[in-house]
Amino acid sequence: MSSSTPPIVDLHTHMYPPSYINLLSSRTAVPYIHQPSDPNADPRLIILASDDDNSRPKSSRGRPVDSSYSSFDQKRQFMRAHGINCSVISLANPWLDFLNPDSALSTAQGINDDLERACAENNRSEADLKLYAFGCLPLSAPADDVVTEIYRLKTLPHLKGVIMGTTGLGNGLDDPALNDIYSALSSTSTLVFLHPHYGLPDSAFGGPDIIARSGHVLPLALGFPLETTIAVSRMYLSGVFDRHPQLQFLLAHSGGTLPFLAGRIESCVAHEREFIANGGHKQGPQRSIWDVLNSNVYLDAVIYGRPGLTAGIEAAGSVDRVMFGTDHPFFPPLGDDRRVKWLSVESNRGAINASFPHDDEAKRKILGGNAVRVLGLDL
Amino acid sequence: MSSSTPPIVDLHTHMYPPSYINLLSSRTAVPYIHQPSDPNADPRLIILASDDDNSRPKSSRGRPVDSSYSSFDQKRQFMRAHGINCSVISLANPWLDFLNPDSALSTAQGINDDLERACAENNRSEADLKLYAFGCLPLSAPADDVVTEIYRLKTLPHLKGVIMGTTGLGNGLDDPALNDIYSALSSTSTLVFLHPHYGLPDSAFGGPDIIARSGHVLPLALGFPLETTIAVSRMYLSGVFDRHPQLQFLLAHSGGTLPFLAGRIESCVAHEREFIANGGHKQGPQRSIWDVLNSNVYLDAVIYGRPGLTAGIEAAGSVDRVMFGTDHPFFPPLGDDRRVKWLSVESNRGAINASFPHDDEAKRKILGGNAVRVLGLDL
Repeated sequence: MSSSTPPIVDLHTHMYPPSYINLLSSRTAVPYIHQPSDPNADPRLIILASDDDNSRPKSSRGRPVDSSYSSFDQKRQFMRAHGINCSVISLANPWLDFLNPDSALSTAQGINDDLERACAENNRSEADLKLYAFGCLPLSAPADDVVTEIYRLKTLPHLKGVIMGTTGLGNGLDDPALNDIYSALSSTSTLVFLHPHYGLPDSAFGGPDIIARSGHVLPLALGFPLETTIAVSRMYLSGVFDRHPQLQFLLAHSGGTLPFLAGRIESCVAHEREFIANGGHKQGPQRSIWDVLNSNVYLDAVIYGRPGLTAGIEAAGSVDRVMFGTDHPFFPPLGDDRRVKWLSVESNRGAINASFPHDDEAKRKILGGNAVRVLGLDL
Repeated sequence: MSSSTPPIVDLHTHMYPPSYINLLSSRTAVPYIHQPSDPNADPRLIILASDDDNSRPKSSRGRPVDSSYSSFDQKRQFMRAHGINCSVISLANPWLDFLNPDSALSTAQGINDDLERACAENNRSEADLKLYAFGCLPLSAPADDVVTEIYRLKTLPHLKGVIMGTTGLGNGLDDPALNDIYSALSSTSTLVFLHPHYGLPDSAFGGPDIIARSGHVLPLALGFPLETTIAVSRMYLSGVFDRHPQLQFLLAHSGGTLPFLAGRIESCVAHEREFIANGGHKQGPQRSIWDVLNSNVYLDAVIYGRPGLTAGIEAAGSVDRVMFGTDHPFFPPLGDDRRVKWLSVESNRGAINASFPHDDEAKRKILGGNAVRVLGLDL
């Protein structure tokens, strides 16, 4: 790549390797892939509980899963259409959360090896379209297996961190049983891309009938970001970042709503009687949430608007901690030629341009410079 | 007041008139006030389901409700200590949502008349500490009764709008049964101060045991803002703002998380197959969410930090739509002399000052000018 062209790096872009497609296709409970009887119809991907609406035929539940989910050719085509030079691909939710504990480690190893191989092959043959990946962890396996895979991932040169959800080992990210895993992530300087999947319970929105009136909008637009916010808030409140001050988390969707609510969280902590019950000695988190945001947290820029992007940059303390992403292959253009520029991508890029109309350096950092620096990408 | 001193108006400040205290004290289910057997102990206010923890004695549930909740003297003392010239007081949550339908209208009328009388008396005797109020609506009564009270409130000169929660008549704010009420609010140009109360279901946070580890932080810091966000999103998605384009809503806590998530909501709507199923004809909301934010929504500035305040101003489209508030008497200093300046107030004022270090006009608008203009206050 010419040194005069700042690279554009997509840090939030998903792939379903063939082995993962096969795994989902073998299942009949969420998450699963349903193959309609009509051979011309796309298979359907049902990954959210709210997608699996028993009142509808399976052939109209969830979303169509076409070849864009598993085709490296189509990933490259998408990258070319949007001027993206490098994609750091990750398995989409719900990753391997649902695996039988006995087979989880070997399945994770197989998928991570597949990702390493695919990136290496791509990078040998493509001069200007580089691929790296976030690996996946066998979180349903015993914690020792997870630690083993964290250390093994450091031997795979194209794997630049891990993606995971909010359940941890099943009890959330404030679970003390995660201690050894957090220690391993810290000592290996492994970046954790935290991504939502489970959303909020239907009752939070008023029940499934209310949700159904607007399709996936409520769970996707509000449930996803809140899941991330709750997960990180629980980590913060339980002192995870006090005990593991070296943890590095990349939060999907610009942190859910954490940048906006950080001040309110800080204020509620400062006014919480529970935390000063013991003779005035503070029992709650020892560090300010702003300090955690400024030293343990990176944000992607998948927020589709300037108000959110601005809040994210201000909350993270610097333009150095926010990084471009697309969420491909989700949110494709509806009913249009998919080779056009995607609205979902252009709205995110538009927010970056609108935030820094006269600051090319800030744009360069968010669009790729930060990812190159933080992940150590060789472009 | 001297014309050279811009007024400071507190738009988010609660009062429990004695009649409301008596009402809550007569109850034993949430919301209720518990009088401990120790005569020196403050009564306890249990207004959230998550406060009513059966594993704790009632004397330690909820929060102490001292005279600051019902004393106009203490409201004035708080105003003086913080340089506040005018307070627009409102009943705190859950207002009158729990009333028997038969008595709801007369109870609402009585409380609204009390508020009118108290403000009028105060303003005759106090030169520089003006009081106005948001009225309450008998939302458990038949819709006709609610409409009657909306029109009657316009005859009470110190009542400058209404405060209400997110349940509407029991089925949320997208309930078609609210149509006549929205029409009455629109035709009377009544500002609706929308405030959360019910939060999120415990399971959203991982259950009551997880919540209890950090006192009220999760429900207050995250549940409250999400309740507001979900309520307004449901209104938006169901077309309430299309059918009632004159509605004026003031959203508590800077809109919950709506300013941050508006772009994501807009993107999810644009990519929702459900909305284009009918031959490409758009079934969803007809207006952009940004248009609604810029013409139907005001935000208070109760957000405790610059990132959130900045996002609120950007999302609302202008510094003219954001207004200072304190949330008094909630979030008092813990264990300290309450006559000092409150951290909860200073952090909000600090965010305003930090956002506009060199723009006195913007500060003047947010701190009071906007409220004077929007509510037509006579200071």
